Amino acid sequence: MDAATLWQRYQDWLFYHKELEFYLDISRMRFDDAFVETLRPKFEKAFQDMDALEKGDIANPDENRMVGHYWLRDADLAPTPELRDEILNTLEKIEDFTEKIQTGAIHPSGKFQFTDVLSIGIGGSALGPEFVAEALAPVSPALAIHFIDNTDPAGIDKVMAQLQDKLDTTLVLVISKSGGTPETRNGMIEVKKVYESKNLNFPSHAVAITGTGSNLDQLAKSEGWLATFPMYDWVGGRTSELSAVGLLPAAMQGIDIREMLEGAKEMDAVTRIPKLEDNPAALLALCWYFAGNGKGEKDMVVLPYKDSLLLFSRYLQQLVMESLGKEKDLEGNVVHQGIAVYGNKGSTDQHAYVQQLREGVANFFVTFIEVLEDRQGISPEVEPGVTSGDYLSGLLQGTRQALYENLRDSITVTIPQVNPRTVGALIALYERAVGLYGFLVNINAYHQPGVEAGKKAAAAVLDLQKQVMQVLQAEGAPLSLSELAEKIGTPERVESIYMLLRHLQANQRGVVLEGNPGQPSSLKVSAS
Amino acid sequence: MDAATLWQRYQDWLFYHKELEFYLDISRMRFDDAFVETLRPKFEKAFQDMDALEKGDIANPDENRMVGHYWLRDADLAPTPELRDEILNTLEKIEDFTEKIQTGAIHPSGKFQFTDVLSIGIGGSALGPEFVAEALAPVSPALAIHFIDNTDPAGIDKVMAQLQDKLDTTLVLVISKSGGTPETRNGMIEVKKVYESKNLNFPSHAVAITGTGSNLDQLAKSEGWLATFPMYDWVGGRTSELSAVGLLPAAMQGIDIREMLEGAKEMDAVTRIPKLEDNPAALLALCWYFAGNGKGEKDMVVLPYKDSLLLFSRYLQQLVMESLGKEKDLEGNVVHQGIAVYGNKGSTDQHAYVQQLREGVANFFVTFIEVLEDRQGISPEVEPGVTSGDYLSGLLQGTRQALYENLRDSITVTIPQVNPRTVGALIALYERAVGLYGFLVNINAYHQPGVEAGKKAAAAVLDLQKQVMQVLQAEGAPLSLSELAEKIGTPERVESIYMLLRHLQANQRGVVLEGNPGQPSSLKVSAS
Repeated sequence: MDAATLWQRYQDWLFYHKELEFYLDISRMRFDDAFVETLRPKFEKAFQDMDALEKGDIANPDENRMVGHYWLRDADLAPTPELRDEILNTLEKIEDFTEKIQTGAIHPSGKFQFTDVLSIGIGGSALGPEFVAEALAPVSPALAIHFIDNTDPAGIDKVMAQLQDKLDTTLVLVISKSGGTPETRNGMIEVKKVYESKNLNFPSHAVAITGTGSNLDQLAKSEGWLATFPMYDWVGGRTSELSAVGLLPAAMQGIDIREMLEGAKEMDAVTRIPKLEDNPAALLALCWYFAGNGKGEKDMVVLPYKDSLLLFSRYLQQLVMESLGKEKDLEGNVVHQGIAVYGNKGSTDQHAYVQQLREGVANFFVTFIEVLEDRQGISPEVEPGVTSGDYLSGLLQGTRQALYENLRDSITVTIPQVNPRTVGALIALYERAVGLYGFLVNINAYHQPGVEAGKKAAAAVLDLQKQVMQVLQAEGAPLSLSELAEKIGTPERVESIYMLLRHLQANQRGVVLEGNPGQPSSLKVSAS
Repeated sequence: MDAATLWQRYQDWLFYHKELEFYLDISRMRFDDAFVETLRPKFEKAFQDMDALEKGDIANPDENRMVGHYWLRDADLAPTPELRDEILNTLEKIEDFTEKIQTGAIHPSGKFQFTDVLSIGIGGSALGPEFVAEALAPVSPALAIHFIDNTDPAGIDKVMAQLQDKLDTTLVLVISKSGGTPETRNGMIEVKKVYESKNLNFPSHAVAITGTGSNLDQLAKSEGWLATFPMYDWVGGRTSELSAVGLLPAAMQGIDIREMLEGAKEMDAVTRIPKLEDNPAALLALCWYFAGNGKGEKDMVVLPYKDSLLLFSRYLQQLVMESLGKEKDLEGNVVHQGIAVYGNKGSTDQHAYVQQLREGVANFFVTFIEVLEDRQGISPEVEPGVTSGDYLSGLLQGTRQALYENLRDSITVTIPQVNPRTVGALIALYERAVGLYGFLVNINAYHQPGVEAGKKAAAAVLDLQKQVMQVLQAEGAPLSLSELAEKIGTPERVESIYMLLRHLQANQRGVVLEGNPGQPSSLKVSAS
């Protein structure tokens, strides 16, 4: 395609939203008009499905749930007055509670104010808040935020060591929809023990964000925690950033959550338009479908050229892959759908793996995220007439062009600056694109059935561990692994027993393994 | 495969290194014996090629360079006494300088000691130090480290704001092999300006790590910086973590760099063995070849179940993709090689995208990294007989099993704990696996020709920007974009002009754009 034709294509497909100062350029995706026409009927259907979803249809049939994260930023759209009031009341409660914390109206015993927030959650209850903190937290936030987002003992120790001198002024958020997520529960138990070891009253530092009536909700109420905020069953974890899950931690840091909601609301409005060319989320879904042939045949590489958006790629990895990575379509056919997503930030990644993107295996398309504003204030020159930001901008353009010349497609999203409004808009844009793409490929984008298998298998390992310890404690003489497996009555699980014994031994947990660890048949195990 | 057969396969292929307490399990990769036999001749050749490389052959033919990162941890293997002495002398110089900094023998004017290190570098000069800091820095490091790893003005501002009260006790490392990497140079210039704005003498806070005789080397010497350390032309950026690039920042933080080198040396020794079954790097390369059919047809998902190894996946993303992502093989045939790598950490990622891994598009294989030790010290129970670490361990096992049952292959690497020795060993393991795989698929794993195209295109954009500004300043009346492009004599670059004008305008850089930004043909531009 010659330069003039390409420039015409750029202009023909350019999407611009005036109020958001938001641009979407899909000219470097090599679809043609015929392709667009073949997808139009699918889009007609997807727009209708999306409309029904927003009106309160059961869009998550497996779990018999409505899908209502769009209502969070425009409560008037909620299907009932009760839901609308609940959304608005929660928002006010978040602001009211945050103000009381920030002004010291609610304060720790013997201290004027809380200084820090420790957020305990995982997956949808962590990545959104982490992304937003990295993108939007001021240099000196109202409260500084810290995260425990795993069940790694050393990881928990590290965070607690960082907080050790200010635990008495640290507010702990425990975020779990079911209240039963093991990683989050473990983190809470460990943190609580640390508070108790310092003679601090945990409940008067603790806040729960959880489903009404969940175990965690009950615990918080029975122990008299400072507050609880609701998670709704019509909001999935990965789309919960604009519910209390994301808004409370953001507000605590001093981030303008009304602006986040406003940006999302504006983006929701335009991505509700049932016309492909006028709807940036539909344009994204079109590109994804084109790139991967509707089957996820290409990975989505996300490259924001802005340090503060580093975690946006990881946030999208969750949103896209958990939503779209499905075995079956809505009719039950086996389809193995999904789109793999990865990326960190530009231009840093140009020095990491853009070598492969340009020259290597062509199994991806790129999404560049461009931010027009370089920084608050004036930049010094690093050469006559050139700033650091000019380099960043030029490197984005240069990479986009170099990839295109090598037949690697890309999308470019442009925002004026990273602020609460644009971050809200980006979240909404991708939530909608994922929803539309889900309809295009006819899958349920709002459940995650595949996560259960790993959890069940893990629970079985923990059960097995208990049995192992019981048998070893009852047994006198050392046993071989296969003898131990026989005694438990699970001869087929000897490998699992081997793995858990290695772990127990490494942590002085009452087992002695003798023999050559690299030759499992030589091992004898006994209780210590 | 029934449980007994699978357990036998596990034992047959299990690799164990006694001194390193290192395990490699490849039983969940579904290759068969026939496949292994077909690869044996390729491995014979790869072992020979690797041997020649280690002896000082020109293994990077395009750049006419030796590849010597293995010598860094066993200097006796260097091909000449001069090289050996240089390696040893540099190591002593690193330790000597670090001691002087940590004891205050070298200190900032008017202060007893340096408290912080600011490292400025990108790609191979950043990711290794960042990974190692995250993995190994003590909670209270000798000096706390901070990174500028991009040319993002807002990102630079954020780091400088965090350092604002301790700039006078902050040591600045500038890391660039060529001394001309624009991102790093820009960071240095901006940081220097901040020092000067506070009347601090930059050179007496600055250290260079760079190639002997480079621009940066000359600058440091002419300005009288505190010290300079060499980067060798026989060490590539992505394999430079165990050179001064990685060792100096690590030592500054109080990390035992001799142990890092020792771990790498031990792993080097075993991965030098020219026998597939006894060489864990060869076993990895075998698995990669099997998974992707020798063409990178499957992505490598890296899942360390340990928070401190979060950046290992990103480190490997660089090492693997920049090394293997090549257009041509050594004979010049177009092959578009590579392996895409992504991942963060388990079990966190189980709540993000393991849904897709288990059920969705089967375009990947997983590498689990297991760490046997949960934490320093005893863990509390979160249930009777169960700790947080048991959950982490069980979740790894459960996910491995759930993936296998759904025909998704995985490798499991097990280390006893995260310490300097095991981190050194992991680095060496993957460096060698990448090298061997490069020989298997007959590519040069030690250059990065594709990176140049993006850089050149970026330089052209910056040139164009200067021309745009010249024309606008000379011109009185507003011009349309196409008129402007004509005047510059580059009518084919109107899109690029449009993009850079948007960026200049957003940063008050002396241009005024009037019209509808979403309709480029409507725009008129003039100097402000």
